[in-house]
Amino acid sequence: GYVSQGAMAIQSREFKMLLPFALVAAGLLFLGSRGYLRWEGPAFLFGAACSALAGFIGMRVATQSNSRTTTAAMKGLNEALQVSFAGGSVMGLSVMGLALIGSTVVFLLCIFAFGSDAFSIESISLPILSGFALGASCIALFSRVGGGIFTKAADVGADLVGKIEAGIPEDDPRNPATIADNVGDNVGDVAGMGADLYESFIGSLVGAMILGMAVSGLADETRILLALLPMFLAGVGILASMLGMKFVKVKPGSSPQRALNFGSFVAGGLMAILAFPICIITLKGQDLGGHFTASGLGICTAIGLAVGTAIGLITEYFTGTNRRPVEAIVKACETGPATTLITGMGIGMVSTCLPVLAMCICVLVCYFVAGLYGVAIATIGMQLTLAIQLAVDAFGPIADNAGGLAEMAEFPPEVRKVTDQLDAVGNTTAAIGKGFAVGSAALTAVILFSAFKEAAGINHIEITNPKVLVGMLMGGMIPYLFSSMLMMAVGRAAFTMIEEVRRQFRTIPGLLQDKAEPDYARCVDISTTAALKEMLMPGMLAVFTPIAVGFLGGIEMLLGTLVGITTSGVALAIFMSNAGGAWDNAKKMIEARTSNGKGSDAHKAAVVGDTVGDPFKDTAGPSLNILIKLVCIMSVVIAPMLRAYWGN
Amino acid sequence: GYVSQGAMAIQSREFKMLLPFALVAAGLLFLGSRGYLRWEGPAFLFGAACSALAGFIGMRVATQSNSRTTTAAMKGLNEALQVSFAGGSVMGLSVMGLALIGSTVVFLLCIFAFGSDAFSIESISLPILSGFALGASCIALFSRVGGGIFTKAADVGADLVGKIEAGIPEDDPRNPATIADNVGDNVGDVAGMGADLYESFIGSLVGAMILGMAVSGLADETRILLALLPMFLAGVGILASMLGMKFVKVKPGSSPQRALNFGSFVAGGLMAILAFPICIITLKGQDLGGHFTASGLGICTAIGLAVGTAIGLITEYFTGTNRRPVEAIVKACETGPATTLITGMGIGMVSTCLPVLAMCICVLVCYFVAGLYGVAIATIGMQLTLAIQLAVDAFGPIADNAGGLAEMAEFPPEVRKVTDQLDAVGNTTAAIGKGFAVGSAALTAVILFSAFKEAAGINHIEITNPKVLVGMLMGGMIPYLFSSMLMMAVGRAAFTMIEEVRRQFRTIPGLLQDKAEPDYARCVDISTTAALKEMLMPGMLAVFTPIAVGFLGGIEMLLGTLVGITTSGVALAIFMSNAGGAWDNAKKMIEARTSNGKGSDAHKAAVVGDTVGDPFKDTAGPSLNILIKLVCIMSVVIAPMLRAYWGN
Repeated sequence: GYVSQGAMAIQSREFKMLLPFALVAAGLLFLGSRGYLRWEGPAFLFGAACSALAGFIGMRVATQSNSRTTTAAMKGLNEALQVSFAGGSVMGLSVMGLALIGSTVVFLLCIFAFGSDAFSIESISLPILSGFALGASCIALFSRVGGGIFTKAADVGADLVGKIEAGIPEDDPRNPATIADNVGDNVGDVAGMGADLYESFIGSLVGAMILGMAVSGLADETRILLALLPMFLAGVGILASMLGMKFVKVKPGSSPQRALNFGSFVAGGLMAILAFPICIITLKGQDLGGHFTASGLGICTAIGLAVGTAIGLITEYFTGTNRRPVEAIVKACETGPATTLITGMGIGMVSTCLPVLAMCICVLVCYFVAGLYGVAIATIGMQLTLAIQLAVDAFGPIADNAGGLAEMAEFPPEVRKVTDQLDAVGNTTAAIGKGFAVGSAALTAVILFSAFKEAAGINHIEITNPKVLVGMLMGGMIPYLFSSMLMMAVGRAAFTMIEEVRRQFRTIPGLLQDKAEPDYARCVDISTTAALKEMLMPGMLAVFTPIAVGFLGGIEMLLGTLVGITTSGVALAIFMSNAGGAWDNAKKMIEARTSNGKGSDAHKAAVVGDTVGDPFKDTAGPSLNILIKLVCIMSVVIAPMLRAYWGN
Repeated sequence: GYVSQGAMAIQSREFKMLLPFALVAAGLLFLGSRGYLRWEGPAFLFGAACSALAGFIGMRVATQSNSRTTTAAMKGLNEALQVSFAGGSVMGLSVMGLALIGSTVVFLLCIFAFGSDAFSIESISLPILSGFALGASCIALFSRVGGGIFTKAADVGADLVGKIEAGIPEDDPRNPATIADNVGDNVGDVAGMGADLYESFIGSLVGAMILGMAVSGLADETRILLALLPMFLAGVGILASMLGMKFVKVKPGSSPQRALNFGSFVAGGLMAILAFPICIITLKGQDLGGHFTASGLGICTAIGLAVGTAIGLITEYFTGTNRRPVEAIVKACETGPATTLITGMGIGMVSTCLPVLAMCICVLVCYFVAGLYGVAIATIGMQLTLAIQLAVDAFGPIADNAGGLAEMAEFPPEVRKVTDQLDAVGNTTAAIGKGFAVGSAALTAVILFSAFKEAAGINHIEITNPKVLVGMLMGGMIPYLFSSMLMMAVGRAAFTMIEEVRRQFRTIPGLLQDKAEPDYARCVDISTTAALKEMLMPGMLAVFTPIAVGFLGGIEMLLGTLVGITTSGVALAIFMSNAGGAWDNAKKMIEARTSNGKGSDAHKAAVVGDTVGDPFKDTAGPSLNILIKLVCIMSVVIAPMLRAYWGN
């Protein structure tokens, strides 16, 4: 009860705070534009509303599933998995459905309102669709950043004082920050991630639609079909995901990880096969002007699916328990926190290599097969099984929360054991989900660069142009500035939380003896206030960078900045997410072993690594994905204004 | 004795190992090229030899100055400063002199051998000068990387076992790794840095000469003068530095930092004033074709000096003791190692912002004032006072070593106090030097992009070309891969060192009771072997990346990779150097305070931060500068071959 109330409270406060911001932004878009561009404003609001709704549904489902999971965990592992996974599934399906319905509605309204103008060369629907995507991105950024700060402030605060200073177990009801911690899991990991992946999907859908309409020399009808193809693929993707979900069942003696993987592979394999007929049927009888063939687009879809899976498997290797990288960290824990950190960072850094190479191969091959539109289709392909991905992702925090509830409600220890098993799987699936998110962010950015250039009306931008280079240097620095803001925000918020928990332990008589109840609400309130206050600066950095660079430095410099942010941000995001995931699982491995486990010096070193990794993997890393996409979509949206301002 | 012998031994082993490599590389350049391009081979060897000589001189001077500094420290602070600074000065002057003489010799030989062909549009001297710069870069990279691994393996090993496990003070003669640690200071911090800054200076000199000769539509004589202008400026820069060195004197009651800053400011201010007459006199009566004016070039020189100083001051702010950032880390140390690390990384990340902006402003303004050649002149300007910068830099490790010697020779504690005071100043000057190095690396890279494009014979490279974008994504990842190799190498080498020190403590009877002598030579040998073995992989990565990308992916992809490495590498290098410097000084601040100082929990947290920061600031961070320049120069050198291969 406390948790779902708290989660709803923070989310409604967040949306209340963002509402005037969204209205002002939409108003500016409406007033600052002329003619049909004015529709960007309403589209922005609609996108923002859909994004908020996606987060809201996910959270509502998650907060209700967790207590049911706790109850189901009393019956057994498969029962608990079913309940928690069903919660995740509802979220995954609704997020993907909302994205699909939202963008279809916007696109059809454009065609309805403007007739054939909607997809002429000076395409009307382009800026309007971008406005819709921008609305989704802005809400997603604030949800992710706010949620990330909220959850880690509570988590770090609860752990440092509760576990280390007072020596009480995790999620003990005597710890005042424990409710805030559980609320945080829902706000940050469920709602934040839902909004994130929703935004990612919208971004690639809109990017692919824009590029489909921009293929030169084709008939209007063909271009509409190219714009609709991503939606058809996504529609079938939802069905494939639903089928895959049916296969998620743990047989006795088998691991939940295997069940989840099996479901994902079924959905992915099905999509890879179905992609060809979908592409061929959709484009049957159309003259594609020699740009690409329908089956070439099918190949791109399959490549996207394969590369996404590859990135997921690579991520699983670098962050999974009982794999060499995490075992290296476990070994380094023996020589103290310093070697733990050096090794973890080394592993996080080296783990950037293969995912980036996989993305590069994907771009090169798909470009070769079907041009820029092929790259866009591969980006869609990577996210076709998003519904089941998200279900797999969201089930982790639900299981984590269920464990927390079991601890707080003082259920028998077997229950906690079941939820712990699910939680450990959730760590790896979360890391895989982040791999997907960063992969799709990079590809989406690549296709949005061209969309931006087109919208800004510039044909050639020379890479050695000093303005472009300056933009890139600046862009390379921005992910660091953004991450540092988030890390410092978590540090500050955790510090306030630590003070409050210490104060309650000191001043509430009988609290540690379980005779008095702690003031949970104060801790939730501290996290909420901190999240709302601290998310403003990084949010503003993301929103205003394109505007400032575009109007002060020019279109070339802005494109350079976008490329710089992507180049440096993708590597930094993978580094942070994987280092954090690896530290977390190294700690889990040490806790699971019988000798030299919990309480040993090695465990203490691992806890330090995990605590440093928390803001890495749950706040800064995933927020970078949204940063990358947001600055790109923002630039596409302001491109017509920049064009008018600089007089191209 | 031990230290200087050890240092010489490792350096000669390093050079012996690199000699066949250099001969093979020169042979390949000679055999793989046709016509005048064959001269790249000898030029490469000459550059490599000069670079090795620069490191060698620096080390010889440093290892002799440190014992003299120890003796001088018995007389007082100013005397110790004078001796250690004199050692640094010899090194600074010889490095800068060697760079100047080397490139002048190559340039004059080109003119002598080829007459006016040397500076025709298809400029002969361009590839030959690049070959010379490449030789310098390769040796510098291996010195920096090898030195960095050597010194940190010894340092981490000596500290973790000696200070923490056995509880004996730093630099205690009973610690077997102590000689290796002191040798490391010389190999890594003096010779490595000398080769680094030498290479940086050569890179910008050659870049500026190439761009001077490439200015279109000018008379041959004018273009030669433009190529020589950087050398005239550098020559006067040496004189200005010498004058500045005279002003380095500590008055009683004043701080050594102030004395060093005063000397640097005198040299810088003098140069800023002298730049104008030098430019005007050199280019008097020449027709500059409206590209720029002589006084415009003077302005660029002054801007370069100013921006370099600004980056230095910003670095000093973020890493200096008693400044807000380091104080924030000190405060975070109270709540343990996790918050220490989060705060330090946050500060390192935020510290990338202003230096990058300063570089951006420098590029934009100088390009506006005098085109690309203006940017090149600003890069030279930034390094005109290199001799005194390097003297200031090198004096730190000399003082550090002197302190080590004092401890080992069991001198009175006042001596150690004097050297400690100098050492703390040295930490900040080292961070400032790294700021300069990364600034000049970024600017050098910017001018080499154009030189590469010209040499490869491509006029226009579109930024949204997928090959370019793929190159950039890949390039953005390479600094992480490179850094992870270095961090892991330090981790592995330190691990072997820890085992050896533990073994000696265990097996040599009476060692801890000061009755037996440890086996210093084994520890030096372990560090040497590790450094030589571990420097190969990252070195090869740097050398072969341009070759592999250029021949497999094409010229566009290679340029993208160069830009990506620079974009992501500059930010990563600043982040690592500054985070490491800040942690080091936070530890120093805690050690200096009277209560809650050495041995407290806060101190232990600070030691963890410092140990993590060691490979950040002394191995990975500074090596990234060389990586950036090396891949650029390498690409310029192979550009004619790529041109022939791809048939442009």
